[in-house]
Amino acid sequence: MALRTRLTDFFGIRHPIVLAPMDPAAGGALAAAVSAAGGLGLIGGGYGDREILEAEFAKAGNQRVGCGFITWSMAKSPELLDLALARKPAAMMLSFSDPAPFAEKVHAAGVPLICQVHNLDHARRALDVGASVLVAQGTDAGGHGLTTRGTITLVPSVVDLVARTRPEALVLAAGGIADGRGIAAALMLGADGALLGTRFWATQEALIHPAAKDRVVAATGDETVRTSVYDIVRNRPWPAEYTGRLMRNRFIETWHGREDELRGLAAGEREKVEAADRSGDYDVSNVTVGEAIGLVQDLPPAGELVARLAAETEARLTGVMRAVVV
Amino acid sequence: MALRTRLTDFFGIRHPIVLAPMDPAAGGALAAAVSAAGGLGLIGGGYGDREILEAEFAKAGNQRVGCGFITWSMAKSPELLDLALARKPAAMMLSFSDPAPFAEKVHAAGVPLICQVHNLDHARRALDVGASVLVAQGTDAGGHGLTTRGTITLVPSVVDLVARTRPEALVLAAGGIADGRGIAAALMLGADGALLGTRFWATQEALIHPAAKDRVVAATGDETVRTSVYDIVRNRPWPAEYTGRLMRNRFIETWHGREDELRGLAAGEREKVEAADRSGDYDVSNVTVGEAIGLVQDLPPAGELVARLAAETEARLTGVMRAVVV
Ligand SMILES: Cc1cc2nc3c(=O)[nH]c(=O)nc-3n(C[C@H](O)[C@H](O)[C@H](O)COP(=O)(O)O)c2cc1C
Ligand SMILES: Cc1cc2nc3c(=O)[nH]c(=O)nc-3n(C[C@H](O)[C@H](O)[C@H](O)COP(=O)(O)O)c2cc1C
Repeated sequence: MALRTRLTDFFGIRHPIVLAPMDPAAGGALAAAVSAAGGLGLIGGGYGDREILEAEFAKAGNQRVGCGFITWSMAKSPELLDLALARKPAAMMLSFSDPAPFAEKVHAAGVPLICQVHNLDHARRALDVGASVLVAQGTDAGGHGLTTRGTITLVPSVVDLVARTRPEALVLAAGGIADGRGIAAALMLGADGALLGTRFWATQEALIHPAAKDRVVAATGDETVRTSVYDIVRNRPWPAEYTGRLMRNRFIETWHGREDELRGLAAGEREKVEAADRSGDYDVSNVTVGEAIGLVQDLPPAGELVARLAAETEARLTGVMRAVVV
Repeated sequence: MALRTRLTDFFGIRHPIVLAPMDPAAGGALAAAVSAAGGLGLIGGGYGDREILEAEFAKAGNQRVGCGFITWSMAKSPELLDLALARKPAAMMLSFSDPAPFAEKVHAAGVPLICQVHNLDHARRALDVGASVLVAQGTDAGGHGLTTRGTITLVPSVVDLVARTRPEALVLAAGGIADGRGIAAALMLGADGALLGTRFWATQEALIHPAAKDRVVAATGDETVRTSVYDIVRNRPWPAEYTGRLMRNRFIETWHGREDELRGLAAGEREKVEAADRSGDYDVSNVTVGEAIGLVQDLPPAGELVARLAAETEARLTGVMRAVVV
């Protein structure tokens, strides 16, 4: 069984399912497991750390995987992009802020460029710099993003823009997709496939503290919120328009809405948060997942999950079509 | 051609497409046109005005249409519910705040109860009071709602809750759906059909100033925002958690974030807004539409639109299935 789209043809993969380059969850083992199962795994280059990047690429072994960066942070150490491109990744994904300064280098390396976009201006920018793939991320997503658009409208809007502007570019849906229903919906909206973060975060291979994983298996999708409090306390200078979607917890209840006060106290609070990271205290440390967490009830190996997602998607596409069209 | 789901069987309609009971757009003529074309039209009972309600039911003539109320406002004149139920509507939709005080009366009239829900607590409440249909409305929607959930995750979450709790209840997806892609996606997410507001707002029959309609045909989905400024200035005592999604304009740019100040000035500003309502000045008066407005490029008659939506949905379901499943 396989699901064929322009995306599977482009990358030579079996299923139109892409692992989001999550910092720090998406390491080499997770990316390799997704690729081995017929999807496309992307290592999370995150804020950019040479040793971690080299170690995670090594863990991916000979599997064909890609990589993704938080662009404004990678821009401070652009040699990390060279390092990643030297590994001949299957794709290079640039998210959050202008990809223009780096696009030529990616093209010159012969690596397909993926750009994450959150509104139509971003989409136009991505098309301008020659991205092969646009990831249309709705505000429903886990991790950083904007509040402007939800996945259900951003995907068809980006698809229409691409059709008018550069029809050969591909579109992935991201944000809130965690099962075959969501992937089938993404295809109906016009996407060539789906990029999943939260669902892969909850797998055996994800580089996440076990206490965090256990906490979310029972959570509903009503329990997340977009906030900047952890960016403030961890001293991550995100562009102001971006917030992170996380599980609500005691730390967020305390500080959300009191950002200025938190800025003044950040060093002391940072120590508490870092201690909580180590001890696995998720009333204080953050659990970064999106609304899709309500659709997650287990922590399977990633390869098994890819097979399940593909089978569910096929069953949905076939079953709904047969039942509904009379 | 017809699209068969549990919803079409339940209501004896041809397409799983429901008109949102929009205040003031969804009058009797719009509701009747949607029903005549094989969908289900709901008259917007809105904040509740006896004369308008009677006039709009009269305009629907002999067409089988339903009705919907803003519950907390209707609760101030509950005789309006009796008046609507006496017309034997095809369905009674209650939105925004607890339906419990009114559910028995709807059941006793033998009218199917539809409840709009924005999170899982609302969904449980709707199931508890015996709703036949739950409308799972994501924050992407036009008009009032919460920010908790987007359509792409709320729909499957509500579907799962219904399956565990009272599987015979039906689920409609609402928020961000404006074409066959969106309706097909809603079906893939597990919904039995879709409820559309913004798309039907932009039809010939909608009771909206022509200047407002013309303004939005060119708009993108990036231009809306959730805000309370018009509820403040119009003196609508919405429960605090609800905001309205509207087109950004000069009035919103001026007052959004300065709500307390606006409260102090509301009477004077209200006069300006009401004058703008009359003259069609939409820099000052509000245009209430959702992110789906970016998918709207024309102002067709509603009956033509229903036929188009049904045809697009069928083409999507069939085409994607054939292309993708190999
Ligand atoms: C824990 C976590 C970390 C993330 N880190 C990154 C990142 O470093 N770079 C990036 O481009 N996107 C990152 N994202 C966003 C994803 O690329 C993607 O847009 C999102 O996960 C899709 O929504 P979903 O979580 O509902 O699947 C992250 C998401 C999560 C949940
Ligand atoms: C102009 C407008 C007025 C609305 N008024 C009401 C209303 O009076 N009662 C109600 O239950 N919902 C109302 N809604 C919300 C709709 O029921 C529905 O949830 C929403 O339109 C779906 O999202 P969409 O606009 O993206 O289709 C309104 C929506 C719009 C756009």
